[in-house]
Amino acid sequence: MKPIHLAALAVAIASCALAAALVVRADGMEAGSASPIYGVTIPNGYRSWELIAPAQEAPPLDELRVVLGNPVAVQAYRDGTLPFPDGAVLAKLAWKHVPSPEFEPASIPGAATTVQFMVKDSRKYAVTGGWGFGRFINGKPADEAQHRTCFACHQARVRDHDRVFTRWAP
Amino acid sequence: MKPIHLAALAVAIASCALAAALVVRADGMEAGSASPIYGVTIPNGYRSWELIAPAQEAPPLDELRVVLGNPVAVQAYRDGTLPFPDGAVLAKLAWKHVPSPEFEPASIPGAATTVQFMVKDSRKYAVTGGWGFGRFINGKPADEAQHRTCFACHQARVRDHDRVFTRWAP
Repeated sequence: MKPIHLAALAVAIASCALAAALVVRADGMEAGSASPIYGVTIPNGYRSWELIAPAQEAPPLDELRVVLGNPVAVQAYRDGTLPFPDGAVLAKLAWKHVPSPEFEPASIPGAATTVQFMVKDSRKYAVTGGWGFGRFINGKPADEAQHRTCFACHQARVRDHDRVFTRWAP
Repeated sequence: MKPIHLAALAVAIASCALAAALVVRADGMEAGSASPIYGVTIPNGYRSWELIAPAQEAPPLDELRVVLGNPVAVQAYRDGTLPFPDGAVLAKLAWKHVPSPEFEPASIPGAATTVQFMVKDSRKYAVTGGWGFGRFINGKPADEAQHRTCFACHQARVRDHDRVFTRWAP
Protein backbone atom coordinates (compact mmCIF):
# COMPACT_ATOMS: atom_id res chain seq x y z
CA MET A 1 0.00 0.00 0.00
CA LYS A 2 1.41 3.38 -0.99
CA PRO A 3 1.98 6.07 1.65
CA ILE A 4 -0.74 8.27 0.16
CA HIS A 5 -3.22 5.45 0.61
CA LEU A 6 -2.14 4.88 4.19
CA ALA A 7 -2.62 8.57 4.88
CA ALA A 8 -6.06 8.49 3.32
CA LEU A 9 -6.94 5.47 5.42
CA ALA A 10 -5.74 7.23 8.57
CA VAL A 11 -7.87 10.26 7.72
CA ALA A 12 -10.87 8.04 7.06
CA ILE A 13 -10.43 6.25 10.39
CA ALA A 14 -10.03 9.53 12.24
CA SER A 15 -13.15 10.91 10.57
CA CYS A 16 -15.16 7.89 11.57
CA ALA A 17 -13.94 8.18 15.15
CA LEU A 18 -14.87 11.87 15.20
CA ALA A 19 -18.31 11.11 13.78
CA ALA A 20 -18.84 8.45 16.43
CA ALA A 21 -17.78 10.87 19.15
CA LEU A 22 -20.29 13.40 17.87
CA VAL A 23 -23.28 11.08 17.83
CA VAL A 24 -22.72 8.87 20.87
CA ARG A 25 -22.92 10.56 24.24
CA ALA A 26 -21.78 9.49 27.66
CA ASP A 27 -25.21 8.03 28.48
CA GLY A 28 -25.14 5.87 25.37
CA MET A 29 -27.95 7.75 23.64
CA GLU A 30 -27.35 9.16 20.18
CA ALA A 31 -27.04 12.92 19.94
CA GLY A 32 -30.14 14.12 18.15
CA SER A 33 -32.21 11.62 20.14
CA ALA A 34 -32.87 14.19 22.87
CA SER A 35 -36.04 16.26 22.83
CA PRO A 36 -35.80 19.92 21.74
CA ILE A 37 -35.94 22.55 24.50
CA TYR A 38 -35.70 19.95 27.33
CA GLY A 39 -33.02 17.49 26.24
CA VAL A 40 -35.07 14.52 27.46
CA THR A 41 -33.99 11.14 26.09
CA ILE A 42 -35.79 7.78 26.06
CA PRO A 43 -35.00 6.05 29.39
CA ASN A 44 -33.65 2.53 29.27
CA GLY A 45 -36.13 -0.13 30.30
CA TYR A 46 -39.19 2.09 30.50
CA ARG A 47 -41.41 -0.60 28.88
CA SER A 48 -40.99 -2.67 32.08
CA TRP A 49 -42.08 0.11 34.45
CA GLU A 50 -45.19 -0.26 36.58
CA LEU A 51 -48.63 0.71 35.44
CA ILE A 52 -50.06 4.02 36.63
CA ALA A 53 -53.21 3.98 34.48
CA PRO A 54 -54.61 3.40 30.99
CA ALA A 55 -56.49 6.02 28.98
CA GLN A 56 -58.27 6.43 25.71
CA GLU A 57 -57.99 9.40 23.35
CA ALA A 58 -60.96 10.14 21.10
CA PRO A 59 -60.65 10.72 17.34
CA PRO A 60 -58.95 12.26 15.46
CA LEU A 61 -56.01 10.83 17.44
CA ASP A 62 -58.09 7.73 18.29
CA GLU A 63 -55.58 6.06 20.59
CA LEU A 64 -55.27 3.66 23.47
CA ARG A 65 -52.70 4.82 25.97
CA VAL A 66 -50.95 3.65 29.08
CA VAL A 67 -48.95 5.68 31.56
CA LEU A 68 -46.12 3.84 33.31
CA GLY A 69 -43.87 5.20 36.04
CA ASN A 70 -40.32 4.59 37.18
CA PRO A 71 -39.88 3.45 40.80
CA VAL A 72 -39.58 7.02 42.12
CA ALA A 73 -42.81 8.02 40.41
CA VAL A 74 -44.69 4.87 41.51
CA GLN A 75 -43.66 5.38 45.12
CA ALA A 76 -44.87 8.97 44.97
CA TYR A 77 -48.24 7.83 43.62
CA ARG A 78 -48.59 5.12 46.26
CA ASP A 79 -47.72 7.56 49.03
CA GLY A 80 -49.74 10.43 47.59
CA THR A 81 -46.61 12.61 47.46
CA LEU A 82 -47.05 15.95 45.69
CA PRO A 83 -45.14 17.58 44.15
CA PHE A 84 -43.41 14.58 42.62
CA PRO A 85 -39.82 14.25 43.84
CA ASP A 86 -36.79 14.79 41.61
CA GLY A 87 -36.03 11.65 39.69
CA ALA A 88 -39.65 10.78 39.01
CA VAL A 89 -40.23 9.88 35.37
CA LEU A 90 -43.54 9.14 33.69
CA ALA A 91 -43.88 7.38 30.35
CA LYS A 92 -46.98 7.59 28.18
CA LEU A 93 -47.19 4.91 25.49
CA ALA A 94 -49.79 5.34 22.75
CA TRP A 95 -51.15 3.08 20.03
CA LYS A 96 -53.82 3.37 17.39
CA HIS A 97 -57.14 2.11 18.70
CA VAL A 98 -58.27 -0.77 16.49
CA PRO A 99 -61.09 -3.32 16.73
CA SER A 100 -60.18 -6.76 17.98
CA PRO A 101 -60.55 -9.29 15.15
CA GLU A 102 -61.37 -11.94 17.76
CA PHE A 103 -63.88 -10.33 20.10
CA GLU A 104 -66.25 -7.75 18.68
CA PRO A 105 -66.85 -5.55 21.76
CA ALA A 106 -63.12 -5.06 22.34
CA SER A 107 -60.61 -2.60 20.94
CA ILE A 108 -56.91 -3.29 21.18
CA PRO A 109 -53.60 -1.57 20.43
CA GLY A 110 -52.66 -1.19 16.78
CA ALA A 111 -49.46 0.48 15.62
CA ALA A 112 -47.46 2.43 18.18
CA THR A 113 -47.81 6.17 17.60
CA THR A 114 -45.87 8.13 20.20
CA VAL A 115 -43.97 7.57 23.42
CA GLN A 116 -43.81 10.58 25.72
CA PHE A 117 -41.93 11.28 28.92
CA MET A 118 -42.10 13.71 31.79
CA VAL A 119 -38.90 13.96 33.83
CA LYS A 120 -38.87 15.70 37.21
CA ASP A 121 -35.77 17.79 37.92
CA SER A 122 -36.70 20.86 39.91
CA ARG A 123 -33.42 22.68 39.16
CA LYS A 124 -32.88 21.81 35.52
CA TYR A 125 -36.50 22.48 34.62
CA ALA A 126 -37.24 25.23 37.15
CA VAL A 127 -39.02 27.42 34.58
CA THR A 128 -41.45 24.65 33.59
CA GLY A 129 -42.65 23.56 37.01
CA GLY A 130 -39.72 21.19 37.45
CA TRP A 131 -40.73 19.03 34.49
CA GLY A 132 -38.90 18.28 31.27
CA PHE A 133 -40.90 16.86 28.37
CA GLY A 134 -39.98 14.52 25.54
CA ARG A 135 -42.22 13.33 22.73
CA PHE A 136 -40.88 10.58 20.46
CA ILE A 137 -42.14 9.07 17.22
CA ASN A 138 -40.42 5.89 16.08
CA GLY A 139 -37.68 6.61 18.59
CA LYS A 140 -36.99 10.11 17.23
CA PRO A 141 -37.92 13.29 19.06
CA ALA A 142 -40.76 15.37 17.67
CA ASP A 143 -39.93 18.90 16.56
CA GLU A 144 -39.52 21.99 18.70
CA ALA A 145 -42.96 23.36 17.81
CA GLN A 146 -44.62 20.28 19.32
CA HIS A 147 -42.50 20.56 22.45
CA ARG A 148 -43.53 24.19 22.91
CA THR A 149 -47.10 23.05 23.58
CA CYS A 150 -46.43 20.61 26.44
CA PHE A 151 -45.91 22.80 29.45
CA ALA A 152 -48.55 25.43 28.68
CA CYS A 153 -51.31 22.81 28.55
CA HIS A 154 -50.14 20.89 31.63
CA GLN A 155 -49.75 24.14 33.54
CA ALA A 156 -53.17 25.44 32.52
CA ARG A 157 -55.10 22.25 33.24
CA VAL A 158 -53.44 20.31 36.04
CA ARG A 159 -51.21 22.73 37.90
CA ASP A 160 -52.75 21.58 41.18
CA HIS A 161 -51.68 18.00 40.52
CA ASP A 162 -48.05 19.07 39.92
CA ARG A 163 -48.83 19.42 36.18
CA VAL A 164 -49.56 15.68 35.84
CA PHE A 165 -52.86 14.58 34.30
CA THR A 166 -52.70 10.90 35.17
CA ARG A 167 -54.02 9.53 38.46
CA TRP A 168 -53.31 6.07 39.83
CA ALA A 169 -55.84 3.57 38.52
CA PRO A 170 -57.46 2.04 41.62
CA MET B 1 -64.36 -18.48 87.82
CA LYS B 2 -66.37 -21.67 88.14
CA PRO B 3 -65.23 -24.86 86.40
CA ILE B 4 -68.24 -24.76 84.08
CA HIS B 5 -67.20 -21.29 82.89
CA LEU B 6 -63.64 -22.43 82.30
CA ALA B 7 -64.90 -25.34 80.22
CA ALA B 8 -67.11 -23.03 78.19
CA LEU B 9 -64.17 -20.72 77.62
CA ALA B 10 -62.00 -23.63 76.49
CA VAL B 11 -64.70 -24.72 74.06
CA ALA B 12 -65.03 -21.17 72.75
CA ILE B 13 -61.26 -20.86 72.21
CA ALA B 14 -61.14 -24.21 70.46
CA SER B 15 -64.03 -23.21 68.23
CA CYS B 16 -62.30 -19.99 67.25
CA ALA B 17 -59.10 -21.83 66.45
CA LEU B 18 -61.03 -24.30 64.33
CA ALA B 19 -62.81 -21.50 62.51
CA ALA B 20 -59.49 -19.79 61.82
CA ALA B 21 -58.04 -23.03 60.49
CA LEU B 22 -60.99 -23.35 58.15
CA VAL B 23 -60.77 -19.89 56.60
CA VAL B 24 -57.00 -19.33 56.38
CA ARG B 25 -55.09 -21.60 54.03
CA ALA B 26 -51.43 -22.38 53.70
CA ASP B 27 -50.93 -19.66 51.07
CA GLY B 28 -52.41 -17.03 53.35
CA MET B 29 -55.53 -16.52 51.23
CA GLU B 30 -58.93 -16.83 52.86
CA ALA B 31 -60.92 -19.91 51.97
CA GLY B 32 -63.82 -18.71 49.87
CA SER B 33 -61.50 -16.30 48.08
CA ALA B 34 -60.70 -18.93 45.45
CA SER B 35 -62.60 -19.01 42.18
CA PRO B 36 -65.25 -21.71 41.69
CA ILE B 37 -64.29 -24.64 39.45
CA TYR B 38 -60.62 -23.60 39.21
CA GLY B 39 -59.59 -22.61 42.72
CA VAL B 40 -57.65 -19.59 41.43
CA THR B 41 -56.81 -16.96 44.06
CA ILE B 42 -55.64 -13.36 43.67
CA PRO B 43 -51.83 -13.45 43.37
CA ASN B 44 -49.84 -11.24 45.69
CA GLY B 45 -48.30 -8.19 44.03
CA TYR B 46 -50.05 -8.52 40.67
CA ARG B 47 -50.63 -4.74 40.47
CA SER B 48 -46.86 -4.32 40.04
CA TRP B 49 -46.55 -6.78 37.15
CA GLU B 50 -45.42 -5.64 33.71
CA LEU B 51 -47.75 -4.34 31.06
CA ILE B 52 -48.77 -6.69 28.27
CA ALA B 53 -51.36 -4.40 26.64
CA PRO B 54 -54.32 -2.09 27.28
CA ALA B 55 -57.78 -2.62 25.78
CA GLN B 56 -61.18 -1.01 25.67
CA GLU B 57 -64.51 -2.77 26.02
CA ALA B 58 -67.51 -1.17 24.34
CA PRO B 59 -70.83 -0.57 26.13
CA PRO B 60 -72.71 -2.03 27.90
CA LEU B 61 -69.59 -2.99 29.89
CA ASP B 62 -67.91 0.26 28.80
CA GLU B 63 -64.52 -0.37 30.36
CA LEU B 64 -60.86 0.46 30.09
CA ARG B 65 -58.70 -2.56 30.70
CA VAL B 66 -55.08 -3.49 31.10
CA VAL B 67 -53.52 -6.92 30.96
CA LEU B 68 -50.40 -7.41 33.11
CA GLY B 69 -48.22 -10.49 33.28
CA ASN B 70 -46.06 -12.14 35.91
CA PRO B 71 -42.36 -12.62 34.99
CA VAL B 72 -42.97 -16.08 33.46
CA ALA B 73 -45.72 -14.72 31.24
CA VAL B 74 -43.75 -11.62 30.22
CA GLN B 75 -40.75 -13.70 29.25
CA ALA B 76 -42.97 -15.95 27.13
CA TYR B 77 -44.40 -12.92 25.33
CA ARG B 78 -40.96 -11.42 24.73
CA ASP B 79 -39.63 -14.73 23.38
CA GLY B 80 -42.78 -15.57 21.44
CA THR B 81 -43.16 -18.82 23.39
CA LEU B 82 -46.41 -20.71 22.74
CA PRO B 83 -47.97 -22.49 24.49
CA PHE B 84 -47.29 -20.43 27.61
CA PRO B 85 -45.19 -22.35 30.14
CA ASP B 86 -46.51 -23.55 33.47
CA GLY B 87 -46.32 -20.77 36.02
CA ALA B 88 -47.42 -18.05 33.60
CA VAL B 89 -50.14 -15.85 35.08
CA LEU B 90 -52.03 -13.07 33.34
CA ALA B 91 -54.03 -10.40 35.17
CA LYS B 92 -56.72 -8.34 33.52
CA LEU B 93 -57.68 -5.20 35.43
CA ALA B 94 -60.84 -3.37 34.40
CA TRP B 95 -62.34 -0.01 35.24
CA LYS B 96 -65.36 1.95 34.15
CA HIS B 97 -64.52 4.20 31.22
CA VAL B 98 -65.21 7.79 32.22
CA PRO B 99 -64.49 11.15 30.60
CA SER B 100 -61.50 13.07 31.89
CA PRO B 101 -62.70 16.21 33.69
CA GLU B 102 -59.44 17.92 32.69
CA PHE B 103 -58.96 17.08 29.03
CA GLU B 104 -62.03 16.64 26.87
CA PRO B 105 -60.73 14.19 24.26
CA ALA B 106 -59.51 11.75 26.92
CA SER B 107 -61.24 8.98 28.85
CA ILE B 108 -59.74 7.61 32.03
CA PRO B 109 -60.34 4.84 34.56
CA GLY B 110 -63.33 5.24 36.85
CA ALA B 111 -64.26 2.70 39.51
CA ALA B 112 -62.59 -0.69 39.34
CA THR B 113 -65.01 -3.35 38.11
CA THR B 114 -63.32 -6.74 37.90
CA VAL B 115 -59.87 -8.26 38.18
CA GLN B 116 -59.42 -11.52 36.29
CA PHE B 117 -56.62 -14.05 36.17
CA MET B 118 -55.51 -16.86 33.91
CA VAL B 119 -53.09 -19.30 35.55
CA LYS B 120 -51.15 -21.81 33.46
CA ASP B 121 -50.79 -25.27 35.02
CA SER B 122 -50.90 -27.94 32.35
CA ARG B 123 -51.57 -30.79 34.81
CA LYS B 124 -54.00 -29.17 37.19
CA TYR B 125 -56.02 -27.61 34.39
CA ALA B 126 -55.50 -30.28 31.74
CA VAL B 127 -59.16 -30.33 30.72
CA THR B 128 -59.26 -26.57 30.07
CA GLY B 129 -56.20 -26.21 27.88
CA GLY B 130 -53.89 -25.88 30.86
CA TRP B 131 -55.54 -22.69 32.08
CA GLY B 132 -57.35 -21.94 35.32
CA PHE B 133 -59.57 -18.88 35.45
CA GLY B 134 -60.51 -16.53 38.25
CA ARG B 135 -62.83 -13.54 38.09
CA PHE B 136 -62.99 -11.25 41.12
CA ILE B 137 -65.26 -8.37 42.05
CA ASN B 138 -64.17 -6.28 45.03
CA GLY B 139 -61.72 -9.03 45.90
CA LYS B 140 -64.39 -11.75 45.96
CA PRO B 141 -64.73 -14.45 43.33
CA ALA B 142 -67.65 -14.27 40.94
CA ASP B 143 -70.12 -17.17 40.99
CA GLU B 144 -69.76 -20.54 39.33
CA ALA B 145 -72.07 -19.64 36.44
CA GLN B 146 -69.72 -16.84 35.39
CA HIS B 147 -66.72 -19.14 35.62
CA ARG B 148 -68.42 -21.69 33.37
CA THR B 149 -68.23 -19.22 30.47
CA CYS B 150 -64.46 -18.54 30.52
CA PHE B 151 -62.93 -21.52 28.85
CA ALA B 152 -65.56 -22.10 26.17
CA CYS B 153 -65.10 -18.58 24.80
CA HIS B 154 -61.28 -18.61 24.98
CA GLN B 155 -61.22 -22.05 23.36
CA ALA B 156 -63.60 -21.06 20.58
CA ARG B 157 -61.93 -17.77 19.70
CA VAL B 158 -58.21 -17.93 20.43
CA ARG B 159 -57.30 -21.59 20.63
CA ASP B 160 -54.42 -20.97 18.22
CA HIS B 161 -52.89 -18.41 20.59
CA ASP B 162 -52.99 -20.87 23.50
CA ARG B 163 -56.46 -19.54 24.46
CA VAL B 164 -55.07 -16.07 25.23
CA PHE B 165 -56.66 -13.05 23.55
CA THR B 166 -54.09 -10.45 24.50
CA ARG B 167 -51.03 -9.77 22.36
CA TRP B 168 -48.00 -7.78 23.44
CA ALA B 169 -48.49 -4.06 22.75
CA PRO B 170 -45.59 -3.06 20.48
